[in-house]
Amino acid sequence: MIRFTTGGESHGKGLVALLEGIPAGVPLVAEDVNRELRRRMAGYGRGARMKIEADAVELLGGVRAGATLGSPIAMLIWNRDWENWKDVMTPEPDPGGAGVRRRRVTRPRPGHADLVGMLKYDREDARDILERASARETVARVACGAVCRRLLGEFGVEIGSHVVELGSVKVPEGVPLPTPINQAADQSPVRCLDAGASQAMVAAVDAATKARDTLGGVAEVVVRGLVLGLGAHVSWDRKLDGRLAQAVMSIPAVKGIEIGLGFEAARRRGSEAHDAIRRGGGDATGGFARRTNRAGGLEGGMTTGEPLVIRAAMKPLSTLRRPLETVDMDTGEAAKAQSERSDVTAVPAMGVVAEAMVAIVVAQAMVEKFGGDTLAEMRENYDAYLRRLNRRREQLASDGE
Amino acid sequence: MIRFTTGGESHGKGLVALLEGIPAGVPLVAEDVNRELRRRMAGYGRGARMKIEADAVELLGGVRAGATLGSPIAMLIWNRDWENWKDVMTPEPDPGGAGVRRRRVTRPRPGHADLVGMLKYDREDARDILERASARETVARVACGAVCRRLLGEFGVEIGSHVVELGSVKVPEGVPLPTPINQAADQSPVRCLDAGASQAMVAAVDAATKARDTLGGVAEVVVRGLVLGLGAHVSWDRKLDGRLAQAVMSIPAVKGIEIGLGFEAARRRGSEAHDAIRRGGGDATGGFARRTNRAGGLEGGMTTGEPLVIRAAMKPLSTLRRPLETVDMDTGEAAKAQSERSDVTAVPAMGVVAEAMVAIVVAQAMVEKFGGDTLAEMRENYDAYLRRLNRRREQLASDGE
Amino acid sequence: MIRFTTGGESHGKGLVALLEGIPAGVPLVAEDVNRELRRRMAGYGRGARMKIEADAVELLGGVRAGATLGSPIAMLIWNRDWENWKDVMTPEPDPGGAGVRRRRVTRPRPGHADLVGMLKYDREDARDILERASARETVARVACGAVCRRLLGEFGVEIGSHVVELGSVKVPEGVPLPTPINQAADQSPVRCLDAGASQAMVAAVDAATKARDTLGGVAEVVVRGLVLGLGAHVSWDRKLDGRLAQAVMSIPAVKGIEIGLGFEAARRRGSEAHDAIRRGGGDATGGFARRTNRAGGLEGGMTTGEPLVIRAAMKPLSTLRRPLETVDMDTGEAAKAQSERSDVTAVPAMGVVAEAMVAIVVAQAMVEKFGGDTLAEMRENYDAYLRRLNRRREQLASDGE
Amino acid sequence: MIRFTTGGESHGKGLVALLEGIPAGVPLVAEDVNRELRRRMAGYGRGARMKIEADAVELLGGVRAGATLGSPIAMLIWNRDWENWKDVMTPEPDPGGAGVRRRRVTRPRPGHADLVGMLKYDREDARDILERASARETVARVACGAVCRRLLGEFGVEIGSHVVELGSVKVPEGVPLPTPINQAADQSPVRCLDAGASQAMVAAVDAATKARDTLGGVAEVVVRGLVLGLGAHVSWDRKLDGRLAQAVMSIPAVKGIEIGLGFEAARRRGSEAHDAIRRGGGDATGGFARRTNRAGGLEGGMTTGEPLVIRAAMKPLSTLRRPLETVDMDTGEAAKAQSERSDVTAVPAMGVVAEAMVAIVVAQAMVEKFGGDTLAEMRENYDAYLRRLNRRREQLASDGE
Repeated sequence: MIRFTTGGESHGKGLVALLEGIPAGVPLVAEDVNRELRRRMAGYGRGARMKIEADAVELLGGVRAGATLGSPIAMLIWNRDWENWKDVMTPEPDPGGAGVRRRRVTRPRPGHADLVGMLKYDREDARDILERASARETVARVACGAVCRRLLGEFGVEIGSHVVELGSVKVPEGVPLPTPINQAADQSPVRCLDAGASQAMVAAVDAATKARDTLGGVAEVVVRGLVLGLGAHVSWDRKLDGRLAQAVMSIPAVKGIEIGLGFEAARRRGSEAHDAIRRGGGDATGGFARRTNRAGGLEGGMTTGEPLVIRAAMKPLSTLRRPLETVDMDTGEAAKAQSERSDVTAVPAMGVVAEAMVAIVVAQAMVEKFGGDTLAEMRENYDAYLRRLNRRREQLASDGE
Repeated sequence: MIRFTTGGESHGKGLVALLEGIPAGVPLVAEDVNRELRRRMAGYGRGARMKIEADAVELLGGVRAGATLGSPIAMLIWNRDWENWKDVMTPEPDPGGAGVRRRRVTRPRPGHADLVGMLKYDREDARDILERASARETVARVACGAVCRRLLGEFGVEIGSHVVELGSVKVPEGVPLPTPINQAADQSPVRCLDAGASQAMVAAVDAATKARDTLGGVAEVVVRGLVLGLGAHVSWDRKLDGRLAQAVMSIPAVKGIEIGLGFEAARRRGSEAHDAIRRGGGDATGGFARRTNRAGGLEGGMTTGEPLVIRAAMKPLSTLRRPLETVDMDTGEAAKAQSERSDVTAVPAMGVVAEAMVAIVVAQAMVEKFGGDTLAEMRENYDAYLRRLNRRREQLASDGE
Repeated sequence: MIRFTTGGESHGKGLVALLEGIPAGVPLVAEDVNRELRRRMAGYGRGARMKIEADAVELLGGVRAGATLGSPIAMLIWNRDWENWKDVMTPEPDPGGAGVRRRRVTRPRPGHADLVGMLKYDREDARDILERASARETVARVACGAVCRRLLGEFGVEIGSHVVELGSVKVPEGVPLPTPINQAADQSPVRCLDAGASQAMVAAVDAATKARDTLGGVAEVVVRGLVLGLGAHVSWDRKLDGRLAQAVMSIPAVKGIEIGLGFEAARRRGSEAHDAIRRGGGDATGGFARRTNRAGGLEGGMTTGEPLVIRAAMKPLSTLRRPLETVDMDTGEAAKAQSERSDVTAVPAMGVVAEAMVAIVVAQAMVEKFGGDTLAEMRENYDAYLRRLNRRREQLASDGE
Repeated sequence: MIRFTTGGESHGKGLVALLEGIPAGVPLVAEDVNRELRRRMAGYGRGARMKIEADAVELLGGVRAGATLGSPIAMLIWNRDWENWKDVMTPEPDPGGAGVRRRRVTRPRPGHADLVGMLKYDREDARDILERASARETVARVACGAVCRRLLGEFGVEIGSHVVELGSVKVPEGVPLPTPINQAADQSPVRCLDAGASQAMVAAVDAATKARDTLGGVAEVVVRGLVLGLGAHVSWDRKLDGRLAQAVMSIPAVKGIEIGLGFEAARRRGSEAHDAIRRGGGDATGGFARRTNRAGGLEGGMTTGEPLVIRAAMKPLSTLRRPLETVDMDTGEAAKAQSERSDVTAVPAMGVVAEAMVAIVVAQAMVEKFGGDTLAEMRENYDAYLRRLNRRREQLASDGE
């Protein structure tokens, strides 16, 4: 069973991730993780911090001589700016409180965890909350996702994402998806696959920057090369759709999730909302094919073998340079919300984080179905399943003659 | 910790639900559950089965003399039609296989778990899959939700839902939400709060019926009376937004989830997408109020004290009376998908199921925060928290003078 | 992932068990479960109730035509005595309270959950606690274990138990273990494999009966035919020894657990406490053999391929016919503890329950390692693993020449 | 919900621990953890490594200005010897394999995870297994336990341990337990509370050292100051006895667990095996007292308010300087097991680790019962429970007059 846990504050010493359940023998080097960490830092509309941070992972456990051991994979990503924050964020008691009192946040930002966190955890300084509620935590998720992606790559699974909406700019319908998606998407400053929309999105970011405002958007994650039958219909919490929804909705600022047609499916009639079943396709789909993929690769909470398609809607960042109305928690008076960071949009990065979360859930489902303590064992079990699907396909073919 | 598990097949003897972690001393009678089971069966556009079934719960464990014991609540809902299905669904070996072979399903329905399930579980009869993938399983979820609702009611929490979209008919924006929502919504044959939209939805159902087609739609669940601070921002899987998303996305046929503004938030600028913080409000919000509730009652994965608003998009049912194209698994030839059920739409029922899933997740979060082995203990802890929030409010008030 | 949950009170309508994660295609009939339920009811020294109850399972879900479906297996075991307890245990509110007040228990039994439960859950009637704390709940565990045993049987795994100590009578050291163990053990009225000890144990029970006292003892569970490598050393909660310990220690009245030599290992020197590794043995042990099995089949939290040996110590029942000193919770006065049941010893039954718990944990570990949605798939993965172990054995053999 | 995960190899860069679910506002400094890490390193009979390592924690997350934040507590313990092991344990691919090939372990030690791990994970070097199966992993557990102990200390809970058996030397029965236990036990080189036994144990270690052998033993953990009612009788996996058993049995080399009388209880008659209930005692026991504590503080899987007493039997270390018989995995020939470490006994350290595991489980149960996001909130809920127990005590007193 794959599990992961993360720790660390945004301006603390660093972030930690522990990823359990990856089989032994998966080739893994730091660069596999670092590549993804860099992708997360990119994207037009990011602020100053992304220039400070040049995230790189330190593999602390679970990997030896370039391959996983089957033990928990322990990863550290140091915060480069720690020296400047040391006195503010030190774990040590600060008798005078001089350091801790610096950079205190008392004007909670609407849309962030600040206010609720201060009240729930009974704190006088919103920093005690925002340091963990920060999107920086997603660095650790991306690290875990990168390892899962490495595992999935061994089974020919490709995970990519692209931005389909930013501000009010939408990608045109039916934009073709290249293979691999990320190679193309990463070329665009906003990770958009359509050149025209990409330009318009950049312009929207510029306009929002000028207006000292922020922008949200929608990213789409696409997983190709999945075998049919991951997940299960048998119990509510084994359904892959629900598990993916939790994983992606838990990304900071995500407020909506769609699988396949998503909300559009609700507007169609049944005759236009499903994917007719035909003969065709390879072993991974058991010899069946669909001309459409309205289901987004999931039926009954299980993969159909068609690409998994999941979209996440991100609200605009809640830290504006033209700050929102709030209350100063020290004085009780109306005030302007404090500023902590200055990205205009983080939708491209969110897409990368969503890829990571999807990678983790899909890897989890793979390990559940195929078991195995080593990559070789898992692959052997996987191949046996493909053979079984193939036998069924051949049986069907001869029946159908 | 509240957990629940369900068992049983659609045409088996019955359904079972086991709900663990409800404190002792919560008043509970079968009618609390039956009321919700009846609400689930209602809704314009349902087929023949809803007339056969008149679901009622048998409380088998965990309840004594009208109150919970703290032990697992065991609930049974018998399937009324069992006698007609006995030979098809019997757990006993069927040497001749005569019974089992009756009603075999070999033409999988696109959009349902049939095909994937047959291949994944290597079965010759899709009935082995569809009996559990059936929406009938949600009866057991509604039963669990009803108990959680009873618990939440003790804390003044009201959970309701209404249909905001059915087919292509949308409820007008800004339709006012009555209190309680369900009293009004349950009056409408489609559980829609707007009379005009309600009529149009009924007409849409009639049209779809005539066209032998099916309709999807969107239901909105609203939870009022929640205290600020349920859920937590500290780890990805403690965030309430993700947990709600999983719970609701796991409902059969749901393909999209929104919290608060949802996808609309992605289209707005930051200055128009958050909820300015002001003084006001009662203890449950710590003395703060918002004029808007764009966040849908959740910031940083925690409740803000504003109503929780979550929408679920349901695709049209995949069993059409004008069946979709498929392949006959016995012959390998193109065929028309088999029919199993004949609802035209189940969106109103889906809203009721979504209420149940939300009730379970919210009750879970309440028990996590307030602990307690009895309702009285939980309430005492809850009240102490309110007092603390109130002290903070008073402090703020005196600061603000 | 195999999980199970149970519900129901001792004198309620019945018990429910939900067992999830069993692959599809496992042959299963009610008699597979009933056989184990009968074994649990047997044993010299049981009281009147065992004659009333003739437990039989009703398969409510997850099984069709004599085989599992992959969906949750729902099992019901009705309490035969319900009619006599209906008014006492009814879930319905009892306005006059006449029924509920009958058979109220106010004199908590030392050694049972009565007192702690009354205080923790704030109840006036210990019945609200003891009905669930009762050993009757283990009926549902045995049902789940019986299904797991059926699955394990497909892999040649044999699970048996025998009583090694009862009262002060110990089985002689080195008593040979027949195959299968249960066939022999079930012949003995106390499930003891040594004829002399068996007689002495029966005599001890008779003496205790005469003394109106109760007896504890020790049962040993032995699992043969396990492949090497179940469980994992990588994280504390994946170690099979810990998981077995929890499962068995959670059986009512169990106060001690040993694996292999157990406490005796603590008294030996290292040179006498481990199992020297030699060549030999079949595929399931990778071509290695041990002359001893001091480790009880587990090293580093993983199965060695040698028999798994686990012992559980059960304290004497806390309901004596010569009752212990307690306090009457109504009057605050010293009193004699109430009597609820009159077994003199339940050690033979405890062994059967321990078999069930061990079966569940082992089946869980098998499903984790071999994955698979069907028995056939699981077996194919299992066979592939055996082949890999065999290749390694052959490699070793050629190296060793 | 408190959870913890650890990562890191014995000779890797370091160990990581992530502890989730500790409320905010618990005072915590590194020294709270370091003190326990030092206690773990002590004990007569330890080898060279203990002198190399001087474990100290680096608090990486979850703590600010001397108090917890409610976020995951991330802890790092660097391995001092890393520089010497770098080329052997590097996560980076080692093309020539020169470093990795050094210190390869091919002669698996009986009693350790070596052989099973090599076969299960299909490795040629037992180091890939033993590095994680090593007792060094318990450093991370002790760190987590130290934080839980800090939390429990706020509620007056004292956790101590002492060695009751080492080699064949047993502490005399009825040795009085001082308060606090550890202050006294830590004075003894073998953590034994009886001076004579302590001396005999030291002598036994010396004799074993001379014989190039190793020794096991038994440690007893005692928890005082616990409130009545932690844990629950309602489901098998909520029972505190089972959870404690798993936690302690998962410690490397532990082969037996006893609670209270343990195996001795199995030998007594019911009239001599339970704890008669009397009036007396304070709020934490609801006004009841026991003259004996044969149950070891747990009835029905719940704390009674009496001291929790749990014993763990540790087999002698499997790495002997007079190595056991094994097979060389490279040659297939009989060989002597490889040596990796040279402690003669680690029973005193195991006791400290057992304290940590018990602390975690008990803290978990506290957080479950009392909820709360901050220490203050948790304490308020705790106090309310005590008041409720006290009201009950007063009611009883007036009844009893």
